[in-house]
Amino acid sequence: MSDLPSLVRINEEGPREGFQLEGAGVPTDRKIELIDRLSETGLKQIQIVSFVNPKRVPGMADAGEVVGRYRRHPNVRYTALWLNDQGFNRALATNRLDLGGRIVLCASPAFLKRNANMTLDENIASHRKQIRNYLDKGLTVTHGGLQAAFGCNFEGDISLHQLLSTASDVFKLASEFGLKLKTFVLADTMAWANPTSVHRSVVAFRNKFPDVEVILHLHDTRGLGVANALAGLQVGVANFDTAVGGLGGCPFAAHKGAAGNLCTEDFVFMCHEMGLETGIDLDALIDAARLAQDIIGHPLPGCVMQGGNLGTLRQSAKAAKSEASAVS
Amino acid sequence: MSDLPSLVRINEEGPREGFQLEGAGVPTDRKIELIDRLSETGLKQIQIVSFVNPKRVPGMADAGEVVGRYRRHPNVRYTALWLNDQGFNRALATNRLDLGGRIVLCASPAFLKRNANMTLDENIASHRKQIRNYLDKGLTVTHGGLQAAFGCNFEGDISLHQLLSTASDVFKLASEFGLKLKTFVLADTMAWANPTSVHRSVVAFRNKFPDVEVILHLHDTRGLGVANALAGLQVGVANFDTAVGGLGGCPFAAHKGAAGNLCTEDFVFMCHEMGLETGIDLDALIDAARLAQDIIGHPLPGCVMQGGNLGTLRQSAKAAKSEASAVS
Repeated sequence: MSDLPSLVRINEEGPREGFQLEGAGVPTDRKIELIDRLSETGLKQIQIVSFVNPKRVPGMADAGEVVGRYRRHPNVRYTALWLNDQGFNRALATNRLDLGGRIVLCASPAFLKRNANMTLDENIASHRKQIRNYLDKGLTVTHGGLQAAFGCNFEGDISLHQLLSTASDVFKLASEFGLKLKTFVLADTMAWANPTSVHRSVVAFRNKFPDVEVILHLHDTRGLGVANALAGLQVGVANFDTAVGGLGGCPFAAHKGAAGNLCTEDFVFMCHEMGLETGIDLDALIDAARLAQDIIGHPLPGCVMQGGNLGTLRQSAKAAKSEASAVS
Repeated sequence: MSDLPSLVRINEEGPREGFQLEGAGVPTDRKIELIDRLSETGLKQIQIVSFVNPKRVPGMADAGEVVGRYRRHPNVRYTALWLNDQGFNRALATNRLDLGGRIVLCASPAFLKRNANMTLDENIASHRKQIRNYLDKGLTVTHGGLQAAFGCNFEGDISLHQLLSTASDVFKLASEFGLKLKTFVLADTMAWANPTSVHRSVVAFRNKFPDVEVILHLHDTRGLGVANALAGLQVGVANFDTAVGGLGGCPFAAHKGAAGNLCTEDFVFMCHEMGLETGIDLDALIDAARLAQDIIGHPLPGCVMQGGNLGTLRQSAKAAKSEASAVS
């Protein structure tokens, strides 16, 4: 396990991933309450909303108000998701977000066709337009990525060749504008990854693009989220997108509370138990997960908030032992 | 990942782990229905009941009837759990179980004191009596193990020294009777293990006891079940205790459906996706997990039964592609 990173960086996406699924039922104040609570846990980056069509995603209709009123913590970057120029312009207009441009293509032609009704070439052309808009507005573009990097419900498995070829398209697009990408997210959008494919894909990606930092965005839909993250850590990946409580539960699951995104506190718990630093106060994070569950109003899939952190148990066991030895 | 075993063997413990927690509410016929369904999945070993005090564990009061009426599949070994001679004698009297003696000590003195009100020496003495009973009844004893091998809510972390020392006690006890242990279970009874401690403990155990096959018994109480199993696979562990649907949900969790034992179908899904054989029909196993959920009457933590296996999606993606290429 020698390639393990000593410091793991978390990009918390729970507020965005979770609330976009919950419809219009969650009060704006409570969304802000969760964001503010998360800001106090030691997290360094939180994606708080998405600027998307409120008719299609009613849970994000109040995105502007959320961004207008959350409390900014000086050590935290606050980001948002958007899918087009219109969304980006709304995000920019808030003046209360830490925005950067990004170039994220999709490794699955079938998913792209189905979701955005585009071919890869059309998607590249549309990104060209977006990049111009970012640069016009004075933003840098240092972040790239691939959706459906490991597999797709409509395309099947994504081959290494397909992954690397679409990744190359991202880098070519950046080069056209003289941009140098620093970070690159491999997103397991539909939970097709397994530890072997994570290992193989990350190694192949880094062999081809050695100067770029890999971020893993993993879903736990089929129960492999934490194991896939472990496989990433073992090949030195130090950046992970996660969601507190495992928010982002799969909308097609049979019951609410089904596994969604890689659960922040379960992953942080694993890192700490393995001796890897995250800069996060795990107990505060577990409290935030319980708050998220309270706000959502149904059980979330996160485990350690149910099973309990080991810190308190370690302390009480130690106290019991020293008491016993003082008596004897 | 070169130490991965090519064949992974599963000991299914769902019926025993799950129903012992559910009180007396589950009808005997439905318990038998689940056991019979599991028998058709390719599983080679199923622990179906425990013979324990029916006053303390009302969910197992009908253990004798379950054993009397389940349908034996010729390729499956059916086992039971017991804690003392009385329980063992009840198991033996059924004449419908595949019994073997075993020597399982506890790595945590505090847990042993609390649960069985014994010191390690007293526990060893009681095992001596049990071993004599096994041998008197004509049973072999080839299985050993340790409870709380990685940590304990009352003792704290279990050091490697403590693990190896208590394991040595098990082997010494076997030697007293001229017995040679073939398999040895390291049980993470209270979910203290992490991938690093699994790796370290298995390697150290095998260095000291090279001729014994390691079995991992893992709990998912803190979300690390599958990741810990991965760490085991990576050092060549090929034997795992699991529970269908993740039955065995932690009784102190805030909501039913909280993570219990390592979930059989999620683990088998990971093995198959990684190219490791299990001999199990995953779709049949997922059906059995759904049946378990139906019988229990509340959501179980297993993910792949919600998120869906990838087999059907792979086929439909392939069919869609070949249709598209036939048209073009």
